[in-house]
Amino acid sequence: MSELKEKVHQMRKASIELASSEGEKRNAALAAIKEALLSHREEIFSENEEDMRLAAENGVPEAVKKRLKFDEGKLTASTEGLDSLISLPDPLGKTELCRELDEGLILRRVSCPIGVIGVIFEARPDALIQISSLCLKSGNAAVLKGGKETTHTNRILFRLIREAAERAGLPEGCLLQAESHSEIDELLSCDKDVDLVIPRGSNAFVRYIMDHTRIPVLGHADGICHIFVDRSADLNTAVKILLDAKLQYTAACNAVETILVHREIAKDFLPKLGEAMKKEGVVLRGVKEVTELLPGVEEMGEEDYATEYLSLTASVKLVAGVEEAVEHINRFGSHHTDAILTKDDAAWEYFRQRVDSAGVYRNVSTRFSDGFRYGFGAEVGISTGKIHARGPVGLHGLVTYKYLLEGEGQIVADYSEGRKAFHFRDL
Amino acid sequence: MSELKEKVHQMRKASIELASSEGEKRNAALAAIKEALLSHREEIFSENEEDMRLAAENGVPEAVKKRLKFDEGKLTASTEGLDSLISLPDPLGKTELCRELDEGLILRRVSCPIGVIGVIFEARPDALIQISSLCLKSGNAAVLKGGKETTHTNRILFRLIREAAERAGLPEGCLLQAESHSEIDELLSCDKDVDLVIPRGSNAFVRYIMDHTRIPVLGHADGICHIFVDRSADLNTAVKILLDAKLQYTAACNAVETILVHREIAKDFLPKLGEAMKKEGVVLRGVKEVTELLPGVEEMGEEDYATEYLSLTASVKLVAGVEEAVEHINRFGSHHTDAILTKDDAAWEYFRQRVDSAGVYRNVSTRFSDGFRYGFGAEVGISTGKIHARGPVGLHGLVTYKYLLEGEGQIVADYSEGRKAFHFRDL
Repeated sequence: MSELKEKVHQMRKASIELASSEGEKRNAALAAIKEALLSHREEIFSENEEDMRLAAENGVPEAVKKRLKFDEGKLTASTEGLDSLISLPDPLGKTELCRELDEGLILRRVSCPIGVIGVIFEARPDALIQISSLCLKSGNAAVLKGGKETTHTNRILFRLIREAAERAGLPEGCLLQAESHSEIDELLSCDKDVDLVIPRGSNAFVRYIMDHTRIPVLGHADGICHIFVDRSADLNTAVKILLDAKLQYTAACNAVETILVHREIAKDFLPKLGEAMKKEGVVLRGVKEVTELLPGVEEMGEEDYATEYLSLTASVKLVAGVEEAVEHINRFGSHHTDAILTKDDAAWEYFRQRVDSAGVYRNVSTRFSDGFRYGFGAEVGISTGKIHARGPVGLHGLVTYKYLLEGEGQIVADYSEGRKAFHFRDL
Repeated sequence: MSELKEKVHQMRKASIELASSEGEKRNAALAAIKEALLSHREEIFSENEEDMRLAAENGVPEAVKKRLKFDEGKLTASTEGLDSLISLPDPLGKTELCRELDEGLILRRVSCPIGVIGVIFEARPDALIQISSLCLKSGNAAVLKGGKETTHTNRILFRLIREAAERAGLPEGCLLQAESHSEIDELLSCDKDVDLVIPRGSNAFVRYIMDHTRIPVLGHADGICHIFVDRSADLNTAVKILLDAKLQYTAACNAVETILVHREIAKDFLPKLGEAMKKEGVVLRGVKEVTELLPGVEEMGEEDYATEYLSLTASVKLVAGVEEAVEHINRFGSHHTDAILTKDDAAWEYFRQRVDSAGVYRNVSTRFSDGFRYGFGAEVGISTGKIHARGPVGLHGLVTYKYLLEGEGQIVADYSEGRKAFHFRDL
């Protein structure tokens, strides 16, 4: 067994102890982490400068360097995140169901941690803080593998976090850092000991993870989000929302990629849309019907509607109504977040019932699908799967439950042979 | 694309319509199914006789023939099951969270069906009725593949169910029957169109399914359940519970396989246990320490504690206390259902917090872990996974949710640039 696998195997025991720890102790650990980050800020910044220096040397792109940088602003955001996490109620030990099956036979469904979670994330030091603190709050042991560009920053952050957690009394070995790239595949092969993998990164990376492990994976690869401009939409509001959804953070998974327009308003709306997008440097693409109506649109084939641009490009399509819009979204979309802009309640009803996505919106930007904006505090990721957690995943998606049954010697034979009967009374 | 794959692909659309159907219509379909079963009972019985005749010809074992048989008693149980399902509240469209993010910006988390579910089940005609009705009640389209021994019975049951559902107004094609064995692999390859697979059958069969699909699988392979007799247990009650857990249905996944005994009471308890088990024809096995204390116990090695017998055999082990019992269970168990027999509240606390199983019991038989006995109505299976549903899975585990966000033109830029702020008010 490799060193990492052996360590992960040992984590099982730590995870059992962590699962039974009190909420107060887990909160104390979060407070200790905050303290440690603040009192070691200079050390952290100096390690981060080393990562930044190496990034400059290696010609790392500006966008990545922006994520890499860990400064006073990101430190403040991180400690504020810790404060808000401390203030949230304990997600563990909540009784979700309490039922008397028969006299003296009580069934309870009680929330508990998932166990051991593997997190593989992009080059963002603040993500390491956010994810490890979410795991600790929810009583889950975590194996963390960060991007290689943040090696120095991650190393000190991880050390501070682990030491603070152990000082606060959480079990030794409930957090583990994997550093080398080869350890990703080792981690993915720990299906006996790791209960869930959460990958954060590019589509190709997430898809690689999904294809190379038997451990359940929570997350999303594509984010092909749609906005459908219905015939009753307010056209100026529509332009405002579309600009936000495309431009506010172009590389985000919840940025809009395809704009569907009701054919009846296309003649009025497309020129407005074209002008506004052009001003912002956005290239529009569409099939022939669109290019004929709006000069300057790049012609493309129908199959291109499955493209996630993550850049200043968007696809445009005309549809006959909400039915066709829904059909297009369910066919080409990635079940992430899709919106309708409409004043028509019946169209919204139809849309919200049938669009098979984690987020289904009316008259707002798709960019709202995010744990912070939903008021969940931090998130570990956004899931487009339908099993377990869906959409932005905060503490809610990091717990499962067990059924506790307490009795006084009851046996099944008495019930199956009619000497006793269940009465099922919810308490 | 093969015929089955093409049909499953078509089901997507039917599943979207089914998802948006009203609860009343789904209940009407269940009522129509009940009607159809009752008015075609003679036809069903006669098809079942054909299956029974072939089973006799092919030397099918008695235990399987018992499950195969569909008679007046099973029909009554099935129609009672339908009645109870109709009486349960609609699991769809339930608002689990309703939050005002800001003035005029309302987030709701609303339950919805998973989509398309593939169910592969053993040779039990009543299972076909139970599973298809659970899927319909929860708005899920279902592909059903039953055991080949029930071909004739399944064919007529499926036809009656599908026709009744469509007559009640549910979308055409929301139920599909797969009949040939080769279609199992085809179904398992439909990871683009099938959201969840539920296999029911032998360990080897379930493991095959888990190893041969990228679709999430809900269920369990092993059921290695433990009962720990603590030193404070009432010894007569302990014997009664152990007999029930081993004998009431020996081949059940929640039958006890390993009996852990506190070393302090071993001298008193083992002879009692040995005598009672011998009388019922149960063979006990154990490591040397056990065989030395109790004559007649078959000696085995430590690694044999990982055995699921499903027969009149059980392993026995002595432990130093609840700590060692928990360690043994988490190491050798299958995370299904494990019990402690004790009067000691502290031991129960320790046990219930640390045993990492779907069912954690005190002073009752492990045989209680079952959807009917939990008052869930029917179940589609028992899950030992920790992602999504755990334990007996009824309607609760057949739904997911979507986030609906309704606004008045809000854009994210206003919030990220400080012109507006969220106020997160739960409604």
